[in-house]
Amino acid sequence: MAVKPIPNIVVGRLPIYLRALQRMSQEGRRVTSSQELGERLGISAAQIRKDLSQFGEFGKQGTGYNIEYLADQLQSILKVDRVWNVIIVGAGDIGSALARYNGLSERGFRVVMIFDNDPSKIGQPIGPFHVKNIANLVEEVQPAGIKVAILAVPAQQAQEVTDLLVEAGIRAVLNYAPISLAVPEGVRVQYIDPVTHLQHMSYYL
Amino acid sequence: MAVKPIPNIVVGRLPIYLRALQRMSQEGRRVTSSQELGERLGISAAQIRKDLSQFGEFGKQGTGYNIEYLADQLQSILKVDRVWNVIIVGAGDIGSALARYNGLSERGFRVVMIFDNDPSKIGQPIGPFHVKNIANLVEEVQPAGIKVAILAVPAQQAQEVTDLLVEAGIRAVLNYAPISLAVPEGVRVQYIDPVTHLQHMSYYL
Repeated sequence: MAVKPIPNIVVGRLPIYLRALQRMSQEGRRVTSSQELGERLGISAAQIRKDLSQFGEFGKQGTGYNIEYLADQLQSILKVDRVWNVIIVGAGDIGSALARYNGLSERGFRVVMIFDNDPSKIGQPIGPFHVKNIANLVEEVQPAGIKVAILAVPAQQAQEVTDLLVEAGIRAVLNYAPISLAVPEGVRVQYIDPVTHLQHMSYYL
Repeated sequence: MAVKPIPNIVVGRLPIYLRALQRMSQEGRRVTSSQELGERLGISAAQIRKDLSQFGEFGKQGTGYNIEYLADQLQSILKVDRVWNVIIVGAGDIGSALARYNGLSERGFRVVMIFDNDPSKIGQPIGPFHVKNIANLVEEVQPAGIKVAILAVPAQQAQEVTDLLVEAGIRAVLNYAPISLAVPEGVRVQYIDPVTHLQHMSYYL
């Protein structure tokens, strides 16, 4: 029997569901419903039920979802029931903020190295790290088997650094540079650009 | 004749098109095609043509798009042919990085104030600003007619601060706190949470 791949847009909603469930759990809650989740997230209850049903049966009609169980299942589906090592490239404001941010390791991602090409930054401490020389990126990252990178360099250098990341074996790039990146098949990129979000909202102002 | 509203997901792609066009313009380019844009962005040429056609006729069959003209039109549609004043709430790592980031003002958004509730931060300089006391937020922001805010406070305080922003007349909130916010009708929220992007990609690893 052929298995249909889950649409990418559905996969993209799972981390949102997981985050809401984890918050409910912190609030001491044990059970929720697609209605309640939908109200918290501004997503219809029907959409949430449909999304989750693609991965299995997580709730019983009338009794709702067990929060801890559903969160565990989503963590497993998203492969964050383990911890992924992550490198940061770019020790500017954003890269430094992320290197110090505890919220990553609590949710499946542990920063293990930060790189820059600026001689005045290389060797300097940022949070628990010392900035490494980007010239050594491939030889440091490849043998460590690291698959995830956060890119926080200027737009002008982003493609060149991305090529280096791909060479080093990176398969997932979270890109803060405001530029679209070209990557070979099998490598994923997600973009964080505050201005695109602001412009999306200003349309409605 | 009834005018159909443009789907939100289409509006969300316009800033991506605009960003690519502005980069092409910086590269000295004058004309592009939906094919070329699509290759840069990983979006099909047909999708781009369909999206743009919802707003008018921007190119001629066979001659492509004039980059400067299309960028101007998109800026006008997204209402970033003007500059929006923006406040930042939260003078931690992320708020400070954004207060110093020039990339906002170049693309339609000018930070004009930054607020925090921490006495050790209030009055301190960050980039060209001095941190203001959040207790004065409503009385500072409301008379200035500011409509856009960037929220960079801890998750625990995000809803409370959002209520304050709404009271102050803010209509668009870019939220960096990893929590879903409740806002009244007419107020928009967009979310930036690096972990949801990382988890989206780890699914495929």
